[in-house]
Amino acid sequence: MVREPQQERSRTTRARLVTAAAECLAERGWTGTTVGVVAERAGVSRGAAQHHFPTREDLVVATVEYLAEQQISEVRRRAETLPRGRGRAEPVARMLLNLYTGPMFRAALHLWVAASTDEALRAVLAPLEARVGREAHRVAVELLEADESAPGVRETVQSTLDLARGLGLASLLSDDSKRRERLVRQWAELLEPVVGQSLTRRR
Amino acid sequence: MVREPQQERSRTTRARLVTAAAECLAERGWTGTTVGVVAERAGVSRGAAQHHFPTREDLVVATVEYLAEQQISEVRRRAETLPRGRGRAEPVARMLLNLYTGPMFRAALHLWVAASTDEALRAVLAPLEARVGREAHRVAVELLEADESAPGVRETVQSTLDLARGLGLASLLSDDSKRRERLVRQWAELLEPVVGQSLTRRR
Repeated sequence: MVREPQQERSRTTRARLVTAAAECLAERGWTGTTVGVVAERAGVSRGAAQHHFPTREDLVVATVEYLAEQQISEVRRRAETLPRGRGRAEPVARMLLNLYTGPMFRAALHLWVAASTDEALRAVLAPLEARVGREAHRVAVELLEADESAPGVRETVQSTLDLARGLGLASLLSDDSKRRERLVRQWAELLEPVVGQSLTRRR
Repeated sequence: MVREPQQERSRTTRARLVTAAAECLAERGWTGTTVGVVAERAGVSRGAAQHHFPTREDLVVATVEYLAEQQISEVRRRAETLPRGRGRAEPVARMLLNLYTGPMFRAALHLWVAASTDEALRAVLAPLEARVGREAHRVAVELLEADESAPGVRETVQSTLDLARGLGLASLLSDDSKRRERLVRQWAELLEPVVGQSLTRRR
């Protein structure tokens, strides 16, 4: 009967390490994020940290997965309060175009940029980026209640997420929220014919 | 009469330094780009390099300006061969959405990300980013022959450039050109009503 609490403890340690790694990445970037530094920040012994994450590549993969999961469940939670049918396009546009404007995007961006000139990091991040990207796409389709079998819808959803990442870049060095809000309102018009399609179809 | 050749020589040295800095940034990022490393790569003495660029912030500002000017004159040159009127939207969409997919965007991205956690660098890059962004916007309006006094046109041009930057991110770790080409064709439809407006107006 000792097993459960130990698994529990192990999960907590892992969670503390990835949370500390996310903060560390956002503040210091990839070069400043080592297993040792993160362990200290998390209040975990270096040995325990290395037991969970032998290399810092292992640590950042777990961190990106954790951040993505956190964000996706947060988005799904907030999606429950959105209006259905007319009036849904604008709040969904706002949620999607604001997806990448926080410190967690900055953390991921540090990694992505480092990976562009670091073979070992790219080898682990490229497949992870593909997986996280697909998941973001799936969530966007859900939020929009879009029907991807209709022509052009898949591309509209993709453009929305690529635009959101571009807006994330634009908010990196200065507050871009006012300009972004104007783009959100225009984007909502573009999304209008796509929103709620899957429901209409089911009827 | 010695003055001219010396000015000429000085310009050449500057150009060699910023070209070397751009390559260095794309390959090694901000941390690997020091005035010393760049001087060696350019075949310029460290003293001469420091005469032109006392700090590496000075060097990277000149580099970003140089890259932006190069790209803008390249875009303007290619724009001369574009069709007018119908059939213009798609090649313009392609040019714009491919703007940020080369190694020079990667160089700039390294800087932008470093600046997000480096006060001194941010202080010089934030105003530069604003200036370069406005110039990119102006070129996009020219290419589209758009009339920005019409409602929504300014936002459409902005979204195009933000989307282009998002697509630049998406091509950082893997070849994204096929997917991007599908988005180009769809984006061209969105741009269709905007393209050539300024000409129509003048008629």
